[in-house]
Amino acid sequence: MKFYRPTEECGIFGIFGHPEAANLTYLGLYALQHRGQESCGIVSSDGRSLSAHKSMGLVADVFGNQEIFRSLPGPAAIGHVRYSTTGDSVYKNVQPIMVDYSRGSIAVAHNGNLVNAQIIKDELEAWGSIFQTTMDTEIIIHLLATSKQNSLEDRIVDALSRVKGAYCLLFLTETRMVAARDPHGFRPLCLGKLGDSWVVASESCALDLIEAEFIREIEPGEIVVIDKNGLTSLSPLKKVEPAPCIFEFVYFARPDSYIFGQNVYEVRKEFGRQLAREHHVEADIVIPVPDSGVPAALGYAQEAGLPFELGLIRNHYVGRTFIEPQQSIRHFGVKIKLNPVRDILKDKRVVVIDDSIVRGTTSRKIVKMVRNAGAKEVHVRISSPPTSYPCYYGIDTPTRKELISSSHTIEEIRKYITADSLGYLSEEGLLQSVGTGSTPYCKACFSGSYPIKFPKLAAAPQLDLF
Amino acid sequence: MKFYRPTEECGIFGIFGHPEAANLTYLGLYALQHRGQESCGIVSSDGRSLSAHKSMGLVADVFGNQEIFRSLPGPAAIGHVRYSTTGDSVYKNVQPIMVDYSRGSIAVAHNGNLVNAQIIKDELEAWGSIFQTTMDTEIIIHLLATSKQNSLEDRIVDALSRVKGAYCLLFLTETRMVAARDPHGFRPLCLGKLGDSWVVASESCALDLIEAEFIREIEPGEIVVIDKNGLTSLSPLKKVEPAPCIFEFVYFARPDSYIFGQNVYEVRKEFGRQLAREHHVEADIVIPVPDSGVPAALGYAQEAGLPFELGLIRNHYVGRTFIEPQQSIRHFGVKIKLNPVRDILKDKRVVVIDDSIVRGTTSRKIVKMVRNAGAKEVHVRISSPPTSYPCYYGIDTPTRKELISSSHTIEEIRKYITADSLGYLSEEGLLQSVGTGSTPYCKACFSGSYPIKFPKLAAAPQLDLF
Amino acid sequence: MKFYRPTEECGIFGIFGHPEAANLTYLGLYALQHRGQESCGIVSSDGRSLSAHKSMGLVADVFGNQEIFRSLPGPAAIGHVRYSTTGDSVYKNVQPIMVDYSRGSIAVAHNGNLVNAQIIKDELEAWGSIFQTTMDTEIIIHLLATSKQNSLEDRIVDALSRVKGAYCLLFLTETRMVAARDPHGFRPLCLGKLGDSWVVASESCALDLIEAEFIREIEPGEIVVIDKNGLTSLSPLKKVEPAPCIFEFVYFARPDSYIFGQNVYEVRKEFGRQLAREHHVEADIVIPVPDSGVPAALGYAQEAGLPFELGLIRNHYVGRTFIEPQQSIRHFGVKIKLNPVRDILKDKRVVVIDDSIVRGTTSRKIVKMVRNAGAKEVHVRISSPPTSYPCYYGIDTPTRKELISSSHTIEEIRKYITADSLGYLSEEGLLQSVGTGSTPYCKACFSGSYPIKFPKLAAAPQLDLF
Amino acid sequence: MKFYRPTEECGIFGIFGHPEAANLTYLGLYALQHRGQESCGIVSSDGRSLSAHKSMGLVADVFGNQEIFRSLPGPAAIGHVRYSTTGDSVYKNVQPIMVDYSRGSIAVAHNGNLVNAQIIKDELEAWGSIFQTTMDTEIIIHLLATSKQNSLEDRIVDALSRVKGAYCLLFLTETRMVAARDPHGFRPLCLGKLGDSWVVASESCALDLIEAEFIREIEPGEIVVIDKNGLTSLSPLKKVEPAPCIFEFVYFARPDSYIFGQNVYEVRKEFGRQLAREHHVEADIVIPVPDSGVPAALGYAQEAGLPFELGLIRNHYVGRTFIEPQQSIRHFGVKIKLNPVRDILKDKRVVVIDDSIVRGTTSRKIVKMVRNAGAKEVHVRISSPPTSYPCYYGIDTPTRKELISSSHTIEEIRKYITADSLGYLSEEGLLQSVGTGSTPYCKACFSGSYPIKFPKLAAAPQLDLF
Repeated sequence: MKFYRPTEECGIFGIFGHPEAANLTYLGLYALQHRGQESCGIVSSDGRSLSAHKSMGLVADVFGNQEIFRSLPGPAAIGHVRYSTTGDSVYKNVQPIMVDYSRGSIAVAHNGNLVNAQIIKDELEAWGSIFQTTMDTEIIIHLLATSKQNSLEDRIVDALSRVKGAYCLLFLTETRMVAARDPHGFRPLCLGKLGDSWVVASESCALDLIEAEFIREIEPGEIVVIDKNGLTSLSPLKKVEPAPCIFEFVYFARPDSYIFGQNVYEVRKEFGRQLAREHHVEADIVIPVPDSGVPAALGYAQEAGLPFELGLIRNHYVGRTFIEPQQSIRHFGVKIKLNPVRDILKDKRVVVIDDSIVRGTTSRKIVKMVRNAGAKEVHVRISSPPTSYPCYYGIDTPTRKELISSSHTIEEIRKYITADSLGYLSEEGLLQSVGTGSTPYCKACFSGSYPIKFPKLAAAPQLDLF
Repeated sequence: MKFYRPTEECGIFGIFGHPEAANLTYLGLYALQHRGQESCGIVSSDGRSLSAHKSMGLVADVFGNQEIFRSLPGPAAIGHVRYSTTGDSVYKNVQPIMVDYSRGSIAVAHNGNLVNAQIIKDELEAWGSIFQTTMDTEIIIHLLATSKQNSLEDRIVDALSRVKGAYCLLFLTETRMVAARDPHGFRPLCLGKLGDSWVVASESCALDLIEAEFIREIEPGEIVVIDKNGLTSLSPLKKVEPAPCIFEFVYFARPDSYIFGQNVYEVRKEFGRQLAREHHVEADIVIPVPDSGVPAALGYAQEAGLPFELGLIRNHYVGRTFIEPQQSIRHFGVKIKLNPVRDILKDKRVVVIDDSIVRGTTSRKIVKMVRNAGAKEVHVRISSPPTSYPCYYGIDTPTRKELISSSHTIEEIRKYITADSLGYLSEEGLLQSVGTGSTPYCKACFSGSYPIKFPKLAAAPQLDLF
Repeated sequence: MKFYRPTEECGIFGIFGHPEAANLTYLGLYALQHRGQESCGIVSSDGRSLSAHKSMGLVADVFGNQEIFRSLPGPAAIGHVRYSTTGDSVYKNVQPIMVDYSRGSIAVAHNGNLVNAQIIKDELEAWGSIFQTTMDTEIIIHLLATSKQNSLEDRIVDALSRVKGAYCLLFLTETRMVAARDPHGFRPLCLGKLGDSWVVASESCALDLIEAEFIREIEPGEIVVIDKNGLTSLSPLKKVEPAPCIFEFVYFARPDSYIFGQNVYEVRKEFGRQLAREHHVEADIVIPVPDSGVPAALGYAQEAGLPFELGLIRNHYVGRTFIEPQQSIRHFGVKIKLNPVRDILKDKRVVVIDDSIVRGTTSRKIVKMVRNAGAKEVHVRISSPPTSYPCYYGIDTPTRKELISSSHTIEEIRKYITADSLGYLSEEGLLQSVGTGSTPYCKACFSGSYPIKFPKLAAAPQLDLF
Repeated sequence: MKFYRPTEECGIFGIFGHPEAANLTYLGLYALQHRGQESCGIVSSDGRSLSAHKSMGLVADVFGNQEIFRSLPGPAAIGHVRYSTTGDSVYKNVQPIMVDYSRGSIAVAHNGNLVNAQIIKDELEAWGSIFQTTMDTEIIIHLLATSKQNSLEDRIVDALSRVKGAYCLLFLTETRMVAARDPHGFRPLCLGKLGDSWVVASESCALDLIEAEFIREIEPGEIVVIDKNGLTSLSPLKKVEPAPCIFEFVYFARPDSYIFGQNVYEVRKEFGRQLAREHHVEADIVIPVPDSGVPAALGYAQEAGLPFELGLIRNHYVGRTFIEPQQSIRHFGVKIKLNPVRDILKDKRVVVIDDSIVRGTTSRKIVKMVRNAGAKEVHVRISSPPTSYPCYYGIDTPTRKELISSSHTIEEIRKYITADSLGYLSEEGLLQSVGTGSTPYCKACFSGSYPIKFPKLAAAPQLDLF
C-alpha cells in the first residue's frame, strides 16, 4: 500500500473574468516557476465545461505553442506548478486534478500537505472510494463529492473541516473559482485585481508580471468565492493561531514577492544584518551562495561594513537532464552550478553567506572551492537556525537522519564542512528580523515544535513518509 | 455534463504466471493492434504492487524501447489497445485504468460498451463518487469498490450484475487476474496456455504470436479467476440468450483468428460464396477492396467460377498524421489508400467485393476509380446486409442518419455509388454462413433488433451519444 | 577511409510548373514509399532560391504538418525516399543534397549506385574537393561543379560521362528541373503531365496518385531538361545496350506501376504461370508469402487450376522500432509479420509462392509455420531464379557469401528450408515472361554477368563494399 | 545568391589525450553555454576515424543521455556551441563541420567571422568547389583541401594566410588536434592541461569546470599542433598589431573567466569604478541590470560609496520557446525577464547600471519599470561607450541604423529612455580600466575604426550583410 505523497513545493495561480484567462494563468505560472519545476497544468472554464492541458516539464515548454491556448477557452482558469523529487512524479499526479461529480465538473490545484491524508483515505476507501493518483489533493475532492451539504461552498467547508495540514487551494467549476487557505496559513496566498478580473496567486510576483494590482493576502482560514456576481469571503473554519512558514522567507519565495505582510528581499537582508550582529568575524569580503543567498549577504556586508562581492558565479543553464560524466571522471557536484572568481577570493578572508545547510555536503564543496580559489580564511554564515526537523507542511526536506544538524553540533558541522568558523542565525534573531513580533510563525523545521498534532494512528508511518 | 464514451473497438490481453509477462503482453497487444490503433497500455504485477505504462500511439511505438519493460516487473500483466474517433481520445482515457481502493490496487482493461453507464454514473455521483475519466469502464471499478461484498470475486459479481451492455474485462490485482465476459457474449474472449501460464486474449491470433495453446473461449457470463493456485471458473450472472456480434466476422476480427467457435477467414469466404449464390452477375473478374474484403472475394470468385484478381493495390504506409494537400488540389480521399491496376481492370466486367457500406462515399469513389481504370462494368457486392442501425455494444458506427442504408433503398444506394449493380448478402445468407444455425447472433446493426433493452431514463440521450 | 555507400533502393519524384509543387511531391513520395522507408526530403524552387525540408522517417511523418509546405514555396520541387540498412543512415545522407556552386544553387536526388565512385572520389580529393556525406551522389555534384563546360546541360553531360553505374537523377536549380537516366537504364523513370506541369517519377503509381497523365518513360541515356519554355530531350551519352533491372519486376516495384513498358502485376502473374508450367506439383491450394508474392501466386494458381488462398496473414503494423522480446522468450522473427490460417492449411498439400530466397532463414521459418499449422506437404515455388550474386546497381542485397544459392544446390536449399519440394523459375522462363524477348535485361543477380565492367583499381575493395 | 553568415558568438573546446575526451568536451561546452545557446556539437577521434553528434539545442539537452557518449569514442574531441539570430540557424550549419578530403577526415570548430568570405567563396566556386552550408567556416576547409602543401600544418597555414577576419579554430583529424587564433587575436582562446591531456577553450571557465590547469593563452597568430608526441607551437602568419575584442570584457565573456591576461569580473568592476568617477550623481542606491551588469554596479557602488542593491530580480526560466501572450494582452517584453523589488526602489534616487544600450527599447522599459516601482529619480549609467558601429569580427550586433547611438546624441537617448540622467563610460576610461595601457584593443564598435580593411570588391555587399 502506498502512502501519500505531499504536494509540497508548489505554486498556484487563478484568474476569473478575463477573456485571456488561460494565457494570463500561463504568465502567472511562469512567474511562480521557482516553486515547482517538474510539471505544470492549466484548467480553464468557458462557463459550461472545463478544459485542461497539463504535462511534465517547465511552463515555457509545456505551453510552448499558441495552439494550446485555443484548447483552453473561457474567462476563468487555474494553474499549478509542482516539484517532486522522486519516482512518483508521474503524469497522473500532475495538477490541477479535474473530475466529474454529482454537481458537474470541478478542478483543484493544491499547494501544501495534509497530515491526516492516510487516515481519511482509509476511511474513504472503506466507504468505497477509489483513488487514481497518489496525491493527498485527491482526498479533498472525495470529501467534497461525498459531502451531504448542498452548495459548493458548504461542501468545501465540509471537506476542509475534515483535513488537517497545510493547504492553499484553488477550485474551479463551470461558473466559479474558489480559493482557500488553511487556518494556520502555512503557505502564502494573495488576492489581486486586473481590471474587473480577480486574481489569486501563491506570491505577489505573479501579480506583478501580469500587471495586476495587489489587493491583500487571503487570510488564514479564509475561503474566497468568486463568480460573476463578484467576490464573497467566508471564514467558516475553526480559528487557530496562525503559523505562516518562516522558511518561505529564508529560502522558498522569490525576493521580489510580498508574503505574510512583508517583502521577502527586505526580510532576507535583515536576516543578513542580524547575522552580522550575532556572528561578527574579521574578514575582507562577503560573498553569497547565489542566487538565494544574495540579499542576506548584502545585509551582512552592509551591517559589517565589508565589501560585497559575487565571488561565486552561477551557471543558469543547469537543466533537468544534466548527465553526470563517467565514473572515471571525478564527481562534479556543485561545480556544475558554481565557479569561483579567483581574483576576488585570492588571499582574502571570506565570509560565505548561505540560507541553510541541509546534508552539509554542498556546503563542504563550496568551502573547498572557495579555499582552492585562494581564500585565506572561509567563514560560513547561515541566514537561518540549524534545520533539524523535517517539514510536514509542504517543504520538501529530507528525513531527520539526513539533516546534519539533527545529529551534529555546530562545531561538528563546522569541522565537516571545513570552515574556519560557522555561525547560524539564532531563532530569536530570525523572529526579530521578520518583524512585527506579534505574528507567530511556524518554525518547526528549526524547533521541532509542530503546530499540528499528528493523528495518533498515522503518527509512526506518517513520520516515515519523508 | 458529458455523456459516456464507449470503450468501443478495443483489444485486451493478459497473462498470469510468466517471468516475461509484460513482454508477452506487448506481443499480444501487437497481434491485436487491428482492434485499436489510438492508444495502448500495460499494467503488470510483481505480487506486491502494480506498475503501468500507457500512452497514445501504436504498440510498437509506445513500447519502443527495452527500458520500459524493466519498469513493468512481475509475472502477471494485462494490456489494452484502443481506438477512438473523437477529441475525447485524451491521455486520461488510455487503459488499463489503475486505482487504489479498500483492498489494495486494481487495474482493469475493457472491450465493449455499457448501455446503462449514465444512469449508474448519476447514482454513483449522487452517492459521492468522483469520475476522472470519461470512460464507462470507470463505473465498473466504482461499483466494485463500493460493493458490500468481501471477496474480490463477489465484488466483481456484484459490480457486473449492475451493468448492462457489452464487456470483455481483464482485472489485475497484486495477486490475481480475473477475466469476465458479459452474459450475451457480444465480444470474443479466449483462454490459452503457455507452459504453466494462463493467457487471455480478445482473439486467438494473439495466442498464436506468443505460441500459446488455444484452450477454449471464455463463455458468455463466465468469470475466470486466475491466481497462483490455478484457474477457477464461475458463472454467477443471470443467464440470457447469447448474442455474439456477427460484425466481428464481417469486418472487425483478424482473418486468422478463431472466435465464436469458427475461423474468421473461413466464415468470410463462406459469406462470399453465399453472396455469389444470391447475387450472380455475368462478369470477367472478381476483385476485393483490400484488406478486409479479400476472403469474401475469394469465396465469391470460387463459387462464381470467376478469376480473382488484386485489382486495387493498398498503400500500407497511411499513418495517423497524413496531411491532406492544399485545397487547390482535388480532394484525394480513397486514392491515398488504394490504386487500381489498370491492365487488370481494362475492358473488364468487374465484381468488387467489400464488407459493408457505411456512408457510401468511399464506395462511390472506389466504383469511379475502377471505372476510370477502364472497367466496362462495375458490380458491387457487399458481404453483409445493409448496415442501417448503430451499434451500442462496442463497434464504432456512425449515427443512424449517417448510415446510408437507414434512409435509402438499395437501388438509391446503387445510383449514388454509380455501380452497374449492387447486391448485399441477405440476413439469412449471413446467418447460414456462420453455420451452426442454433447460435443466435447479435445482428442489431442490420436488423435494429437490440438484444438489450435501453434503460428508460437514458434511452433518449443514450441514443444521441453516437 | 570510408568507402561509398550506394544510394540503393530509393524513389525520386519531381514536378515543374505547378503552384502546389511541394505538396504534390509529398504525395508522389508517399506513393513511392515502398522504395525507401528510412528517410525522405523535398527541395523546392520559387524561381530565385531553393528551400529544403528533409529528415529521417516516413513521408507521412516527416511532412506531417501543413507548416512545412509553407517553407517550401514555388512551382518546382523534387523529392527523394531512401532505404538504408546500416549505421550510415544518418541525417547528413538524407537526400536531396542541396549545394551552392559557381552558377548558383542546385539540388539533386539520386536512385541507383555508381560503381566507380571511389576512384572518382580519390581523384576529386587529390584535386582538393571535400566530401560532407558518404553518398556517391555527392560525386556527381562535384563533377558538375568542376566541369569546364558552361551551360548546366553541358556540365551535367560532362559529369555523367565520367560516372559508371546505375542512376536515375533529378536536378533542381532556381529555374530548371533536369532528369537523367543512365545509358543502361537500370532503374525505371517515367515522365508524366498534370495540366501544364511536367512530372518525373520512379514509378507510374506516383503519377496515378496525383492524377497525372503517364506520357512515356525516360529513355536509357536520356537527359530531359524542363524549364519555363518547356521540355527538351537530349541523348548525349554514349549508347550502350540497355539493361533494365529485372528484379524490379520480381520484387521491388509496386504491382500497380508500369515500368520498362509493362505492368508489374501482369508480369508477376506471368512469372507465376510460367513457374506452374515449369514446376508442377500435385497440391490442394496455392498460397502467397504476402504482400509481394500475391500476383505470382495468383498466376500459379490459375495456371495450375488450384485454389488460391490467403493462408498467411500479414500484420502491417510492423514499425521501425519493433522491440524484440527478452532473450528468455524464443526468437520471434517472421511470426511478427505473418500468421497462418490453420483452417485453410490443415491437412492440405500447400504450394507456397515467394519472390526470392536470400539467406534462406525466412523461408525456413515460413515452411515450418505452414507445416505446424497442419499442412501435409509444403512445396515452395520461387518466382525468380536463384539469387547468387550481389547487385551493384541499386538493390540492397547481402554479400555473396550470405546468399544461400551462391554456395548451395537447390536440393541443399530445399533441405535447409525443410520443404517437400522446391522450384525456382528458370532464367529462360523469367525472360520469356517479361515478354518482348528483344529487350535485354540486367539479370546479374541471377547470372553474375554484370553489364558494367568493374574499374580495375577499385575492383577488389568495391566488391567488399557490399 | 546567399551571402555568408558569420559564425559569430560561439564557444569552442577541445581536449587531446584523455580516455573521456567526449565527456569532458561536453562539460567544457556546458561551461561555455553563454557563448551560444542555439546549437552544439562534438566530434571525437579514436585514432582511426571521427565520430560526430550535433543538434539544435542546449548542451544539456543535446547530450542528455549517456548513450551518446558511447557513440563518441576516443581520446580526442572538439566541440562547439553557437548562437544565431536568424532563419539560417538550420541543422546543416551546426558545427563542428566534418568532411573527408584527400588526407582523410577532418573536423573544424570556429569562433569568429571572416570578412573576405564571399570573395574566396566566389573564387573557390569558380574553381569548382561546392558549398553545403552557409557558414564561412566551410571556406577554411576548402582552402585547406585545395592547398598544394603537403603536411596538415602547412595546409592550415596556407588556408589561414588567405582568410581575413576573426577566428579561433579547432581542427581535429584522426591523430591530431590543431588550435589556431587569428593574428589580431580578436577572440579569446586559452590552453590548459588536465594530467597529461592538453585542453583548448574559448574561456578559462571551461578549464575550471573540468579542473584543468590554466597554462596560457594561445597567442594572436599562433597555431598549436597537438598529437601523441606533444604540443608544437607555430607562428607562421604575418604579424599584425593585436586587437583583442574589448566587448568581451564589457558583455560577452563570463565574469569568472580570464581572457586577454585579465579577470573579466575585475575588469568589469573597474569599468564601474571609472564610470562612477566620470559620471557622479547624487543618489541613494545603485542597482544592476542583472546578470551582466552586476560587477560594474558593484564597482560603481563601491567607488561612489552608495549601497548596492538587487533592485531588479531576474527570472532564469526564460526558455527558447517562450510564447508571447495574445495581442489583446499588453506586450510583456522585459517584464518576462525582470521584476522590480518595490521596497528597495520606493522613493529612492536610483542609479541603474547596464553594460550597453543597443536599440534603446529595453533600457526605456527598464527605466519605466524602476520608476513605476516608486523610484524618485532614475539615473542610467552604461559601463561602456556608445555602441555606434556594427561588429564584423564575431559579435552579433544589429545594423548601424538600428544602433540608437549611431544616429542620436546622448541627450536624445536619455530623453528616449526617459532617464533623469544618462552617462556612458568614455573610451579613455574604458581603455584605462582594462589596464596595461600598452595593449591595443579592438574597439571598432565604439569608434568605427576597424582593424581590418574591407576587401574592395566585397565592401558594399559585405556591409549590407549585417
